[in-house]
Amino acid sequence: MPVRIIQYGVGPIGSAIVRALLERAGVMIIGAIDIAAEKVGRDLGQVIGGRPLGITISDRADEVLAQRADVVVHSTSSSFEQVFDQVLACVRAGSHVVSTCEELAYPFRKYPELSRRLDEAAKAAGVAVLGAGVNPGFVMDKLVLTLAAVCQRIERVFVRRVVDASQRRLPLQRKIGAGMTVEEFREAVDAGRIRHVGLPESVALIAEGLGMEVEAISETIEPILAEEDVTTEYLRVRKGHVAGVRQIARGIARGEERIHLDLHMYVGAKNPVDEIRLFGTPEIGLQIPGGTPGDLATAAVVVNAIPLVMQAPPGLRTVLDIPMRFVAAF
Amino acid sequence: MPVRIIQYGVGPIGSAIVRALLERAGVMIIGAIDIAAEKVGRDLGQVIGGRPLGITISDRADEVLAQRADVVVHSTSSSFEQVFDQVLACVRAGSHVVSTCEELAYPFRKYPELSRRLDEAAKAAGVAVLGAGVNPGFVMDKLVLTLAAVCQRIERVFVRRVVDASQRRLPLQRKIGAGMTVEEFREAVDAGRIRHVGLPESVALIAEGLGMEVEAISETIEPILAEEDVTTEYLRVRKGHVAGVRQIARGIARGEERIHLDLHMYVGAKNPVDEIRLFGTPEIGLQIPGGTPGDLATAAVVVNAIPLVMQAPPGLRTVLDIPMRFVAAF
Repeated sequence: MPVRIIQYGVGPIGSAIVRALLERAGVMIIGAIDIAAEKVGRDLGQVIGGRPLGITISDRADEVLAQRADVVVHSTSSSFEQVFDQVLACVRAGSHVVSTCEELAYPFRKYPELSRRLDEAAKAAGVAVLGAGVNPGFVMDKLVLTLAAVCQRIERVFVRRVVDASQRRLPLQRKIGAGMTVEEFREAVDAGRIRHVGLPESVALIAEGLGMEVEAISETIEPILAEEDVTTEYLRVRKGHVAGVRQIARGIARGEERIHLDLHMYVGAKNPVDEIRLFGTPEIGLQIPGGTPGDLATAAVVVNAIPLVMQAPPGLRTVLDIPMRFVAAF
Repeated sequence: MPVRIIQYGVGPIGSAIVRALLERAGVMIIGAIDIAAEKVGRDLGQVIGGRPLGITISDRADEVLAQRADVVVHSTSSSFEQVFDQVLACVRAGSHVVSTCEELAYPFRKYPELSRRLDEAAKAAGVAVLGAGVNPGFVMDKLVLTLAAVCQRIERVFVRRVVDASQRRLPLQRKIGAGMTVEEFREAVDAGRIRHVGLPESVALIAEGLGMEVEAISETIEPILAEEDVTTEYLRVRKGHVAGVRQIARGIARGEERIHLDLHMYVGAKNPVDEIRLFGTPEIGLQIPGGTPGDLATAAVVVNAIPLVMQAPPGLRTVLDIPMRFVAAF
């Protein structure tokens, strides 16, 4: 029996996930939900730029969810508050959920009450809910904790991710402020329009995994300025203007910085890399030269998580509990 | 309630594990088993080079196991056939087992019948058994499969591990043939005295995790010759003599090499590293500069696995199923 999937949200990430799902054996997409007027009523396959699939995108979530998929793949928003009712509806329909909602990667700290409610609903329905993705969900947290399996003691964690946004989609280049002046960037940050969501969630995941009692998680956002003119497929950044963003999240325990996550996302980054360093016994580090390719990898992580979530104990889960890996057979 | 542990085997690795256990809160060692005449009857703490622990090492396994530890940490031999009765006794005593037996990392391929019997016994007793360690169990398999979470498709896997044996214990330097002539090395290989056990197990773990139908796993063992004189704390290797071993294991699927594991262990290795490369969509690689420090890391992996095994479903498990990570609280 194939695994029956509903895709909830058909934006750039949702579309990439559908394309990845279509490559896998043992999967059947039975429905698709989106509220965008230009997508509703159209064939899912055509909307993602492929051949027709015979699945019409609907904005009536409850009708689609009533088909009771094995798993709903959810990809609509970064905000846990905004997706809460959507995910709750999936759970109440009796489906497991894998979501790319960044805050769902570790919602317990920021939203303890909503997390409790979702966990209870999932347990009552006998399904598991997981926030999954590359960042948060893998490079800056799950991979850190996995590497930490070889440590007897960990004092301090440092993770650095340098992403060259030149090859990424336009919304991402916009989201990081590429092409703005510094003043425009500051305004956009103040207005909440520039921010990668998920670093505090990664800090919280690491803290829980390592048993560090982190009393505060802080975050800073600064522009990275172009040192020379940069031209991407979509836009041009002049020297001295904003090429992208540097975001640092810190986890403080007993007044000391124990977790330091340093994310650079900008167009024209020369040496993209993902780098983890664990200070303790033993001291060990890891590098992914070139970095993890964001869009391909996010879709992959989500698809690979599907069979693992189906086997997980019911409730609101995190990647801490799930042996995230490639899964060939569904 | 502390986790009650019996240490089964107090050799170099068992001793390192006990030292690591003593550093952790929430753990209580309640017994120790070894058959070496120079250890039986002595205090465990003194045998591992520390202060007395009030635990006398015994060679009467059944008597010790009858205390029914939560977990037996088992570290006696690389051979599944040799440890089978020992592990079965642990299981029948009602304890979970974490073992460093290399072949236990993936025994299903080489020993299907014994594996089935152990799995059944573990399920009947409601306990889990896991073969854990750095290699096999982590660097050349679990970490590979974890990184593979970001892949949509994997064609081929390449792992290279270069270990500088200069800093390792004497038995390990001997085990890799350091100091031998090439003729002595070949004889020792033929006699089965030189061989790192576990590469085929890592190949099998990767194959199962990636869903590759590997029809054959082959292994070669070659000497690495010293390019100059090398002196370690324990021995001296003259230029042209054997500095150590290069072992390659290959997984063949449909006539093609899909998995290639390349292990170099020798004294005087200049650039120790652990390196993983996954060829597929996307192509991605990972490096651990300096490599994973073997002895410290093995003890860490085993200790960290204890609470994870206690939560695992009963049966004979592999690291595929277990979210291997640092675990602070037991």
